[in-house]
Amino acid sequence: VGPVLRADLSRLVGGEHVHEVPPESPYNRDAGKRAGVQGRAEAVVLPGSAEEVRAVVAWCYEHDVAIVPRGGGTGMMGGAVAVHGGVVISLERMRRVRELEPALWRMLVEAGLPTSEVKRLARENGLMFAPDPGASEQSQIGGNVATNAGGPHALKYGVTGAWVASLEVVLAPGELVHVGGWAAKDVAGYDLRSLLIGSEGTLGVITAVGLRLLPAPETAHASIVLLSDRERGCEAMRALPAAGLRPSVLDFLDGETLAIMAGSYPLPQQQPPPGAGFALILEFDGERETVSTERRTANELLGQLDGVLRVDDATDPDALWRWRDGANGVVTAQRGAKISEDVVFPVERLAEGLARFEEIASRQGLQSCAWGHGGEGNVHATVLVDPQAQDELARAAQVGEELFALVVKLGGSVAGEHGVGYLKRGRLAAQWDGPAVELHEGIKRLFDPKGLMNPGKKLAR
Amino acid sequence: VGPVLRADLSRLVGGEHVHEVPPESPYNRDAGKRAGVQGRAEAVVLPGSAEEVRAVVAWCYEHDVAIVPRGGGTGMMGGAVAVHGGVVISLERMRRVRELEPALWRMLVEAGLPTSEVKRLARENGLMFAPDPGASEQSQIGGNVATNAGGPHALKYGVTGAWVASLEVVLAPGELVHVGGWAAKDVAGYDLRSLLIGSEGTLGVITAVGLRLLPAPETAHASIVLLSDRERGCEAMRALPAAGLRPSVLDFLDGETLAIMAGSYPLPQQQPPPGAGFALILEFDGERETVSTERRTANELLGQLDGVLRVDDATDPDALWRWRDGANGVVTAQRGAKISEDVVFPVERLAEGLARFEEIASRQGLQSCAWGHGGEGNVHATVLVDPQAQDELARAAQVGEELFALVVKLGGSVAGEHGVGYLKRGRLAAQWDGPAVELHEGIKRLFDPKGLMNPGKKLAR
Repeated sequence: VGPVLRADLSRLVGGEHVHEVPPESPYNRDAGKRAGVQGRAEAVVLPGSAEEVRAVVAWCYEHDVAIVPRGGGTGMMGGAVAVHGGVVISLERMRRVRELEPALWRMLVEAGLPTSEVKRLARENGLMFAPDPGASEQSQIGGNVATNAGGPHALKYGVTGAWVASLEVVLAPGELVHVGGWAAKDVAGYDLRSLLIGSEGTLGVITAVGLRLLPAPETAHASIVLLSDRERGCEAMRALPAAGLRPSVLDFLDGETLAIMAGSYPLPQQQPPPGAGFALILEFDGERETVSTERRTANELLGQLDGVLRVDDATDPDALWRWRDGANGVVTAQRGAKISEDVVFPVERLAEGLARFEEIASRQGLQSCAWGHGGEGNVHATVLVDPQAQDELARAAQVGEELFALVVKLGGSVAGEHGVGYLKRGRLAAQWDGPAVELHEGIKRLFDPKGLMNPGKKLAR
Repeated sequence: VGPVLRADLSRLVGGEHVHEVPPESPYNRDAGKRAGVQGRAEAVVLPGSAEEVRAVVAWCYEHDVAIVPRGGGTGMMGGAVAVHGGVVISLERMRRVRELEPALWRMLVEAGLPTSEVKRLARENGLMFAPDPGASEQSQIGGNVATNAGGPHALKYGVTGAWVASLEVVLAPGELVHVGGWAAKDVAGYDLRSLLIGSEGTLGVITAVGLRLLPAPETAHASIVLLSDRERGCEAMRALPAAGLRPSVLDFLDGETLAIMAGSYPLPQQQPPPGAGFALILEFDGERETVSTERRTANELLGQLDGVLRVDDATDPDALWRWRDGANGVVTAQRGAKISEDVVFPVERLAEGLARFEEIASRQGLQSCAWGHGGEGNVHATVLVDPQAQDELARAAQVGEELFALVVKLGGSVAGEHGVGYLKRGRLAAQWDGPAVELHEGIKRLFDPKGLMNPGKKLAR
């Protein structure tokens, strides 16, 4: 079927934009590099316009060929990988800025525009595109919207979807449809826009997005708070909002993560003090005077809390964020691989969740660590493994099972900001009430009666 | 059928909570008092718990009886009126605060709690529930969520739905279901919460809502900007955000509205200056110093704009808002009735939209006026009528038809913050792409296969 399929698709988008996809192709993997995530794409097509996307979807839908939309490939959960075959639609050629209206705080861009470009365009016009998921140089805005990506600043500014005014999307069986618009108040119909945001390509292919922007904050100031232990760290994370403070970032590194990353601590003259067993990354942004007041209040508060060992001002914010973003790589390097699950605990049960995750890993004889966006209880719960040791991988999988059960039991979520993709398929059923699970599946059938839109992904059961 | 039905429902909720509904009952009308909105409810039931709501919905669904959920009855579009008969479920007895956690900025309350109580509880704990739709003393939080109500402060803080973390809802055929949760990041399933927000009782009956709160801003300062005319007024509304200012309110009154309301101008020593043909209500809130800076910047900017006649500080903010909220009554009093349509123009076409609305009304020989939330282009476009003059009512209806066509043509929305209800049924089809309209209808069928949930409301066609 491959050659026939590629010939047909070539007529739609041009032969130079249709490629075979050998098993080892990057188009058959994602950034998670997790076992079991192996694509079997029959072709990758690179449409140059929404109309070409529409034509490709229409052809595939007519010929019962699966459609797997793909952004920058920076996902971790296999969402953009054609695990069941079919055609990968890569949006990478679609990166036009269709509208940029700084005075109206908005831009309309094609789905393949890298998120870093969205942020740069905003910045160059005195504005801010607030969401800041990782890998912004590689990831594309369409993929960020399709996964409703988060990031550290979501604490104050909300996740990607909060900034999406409209979507241009190709729906089955091959229709180009506009959803939403610039109107900030619009109750004319059911909220299809929110339904498509975070749907991970299972309901349609996003081809363009209308984004809202904000005036850039005058300044931002970050610090690293070093604490004795997890309990005190989680108490401090609750104490800040309880005192009326609204940080723009409130991330954490647990003791294990901090120990692993101490060697590259971003304040070169310093090291975490002896006994440091937990760290917070705390940022305030806004008007200079407001930030100054908030910092003073926060520092006074932290000075009164038990277990706060030191507050280090991040004199070089870029170095701080490089250090923080380096967690993935440094942690992976410990034993050759890691398995990291993105989950959410209720903020008031974060310390409990982290302690029990550590116990779960320990019972399986695995070293664990955790970091994440503590202000929202969003945890990247990680076990370190030797990628060659099959028994370790099996035990890591068992840790995952127990972790997801724990998250549900404590009232959190099995997926915070990395999507469900392929790897977390079926986990929703444990988290949601039965009728809601049935509606999830009914919505999928409504949008995609043939089940060809990114099959196997974001499955409830 | 009435007595049998009431006897059965009495077994579920207690006889004292099931009532007959004579045609003239308030339960058969809403605050819009518009022609054609006449309920024919066979009974109103006042359940005392979510379980009782579930039992009533289950009974009605089994017996093919329509279900019309009702909050405070402050809607304008007939959404809470049983125009096709059936049972009205009034949530007014369900007003418990199930959870109030000021330190975590959240509360979980039953749907029948008046919105003013939600706001008071937040305020008494140093917090703010940001949405501020009108009639907060009478309206209920469940109704606000079901209509995704707006209000002046939505400009900065977003509409009601932006503050809803979770819903407890009764779905057909009679299931109590929880949707969403406190996790600010949660991509485990499709966004059913956003689908239910603004669904106006057509997908389910909301019984409780989890609400997010914010620390209360330190201060707020409002002023009235008086301008020569509509064009200059709309230019000023665009100039403020273009200069990086972020008002918490940016409302407007057009010249006709201003003239009608001049007699009760909220600065008793003053009157609008001669030649004032447009007014803005401008508010900034936040830290004292920030607000002071923003006011200074705004005043400097306004001082440089053509057509700005005067900026009056609202020395008594309560008086300002009473004046503003009085628009409905004062305008109605002009000729005995008014017909006001809640629509949205793109902000950059607001002046054009307002001018063309005035022309449309004028061609029909009717006096018009308009006010609303200009920062979002949200307009309450109004014609003044004699309620006894049938020909005026017919011409007013024609004005409405032309207005909705204009809104769609200019790229706005036929419904901003007052819902679709009964009166705007069928208007969505003109605004949305065909496949999106079909999905709107498909979602309705998925949630409500028998079509018993608030029938005749929020219809796309």
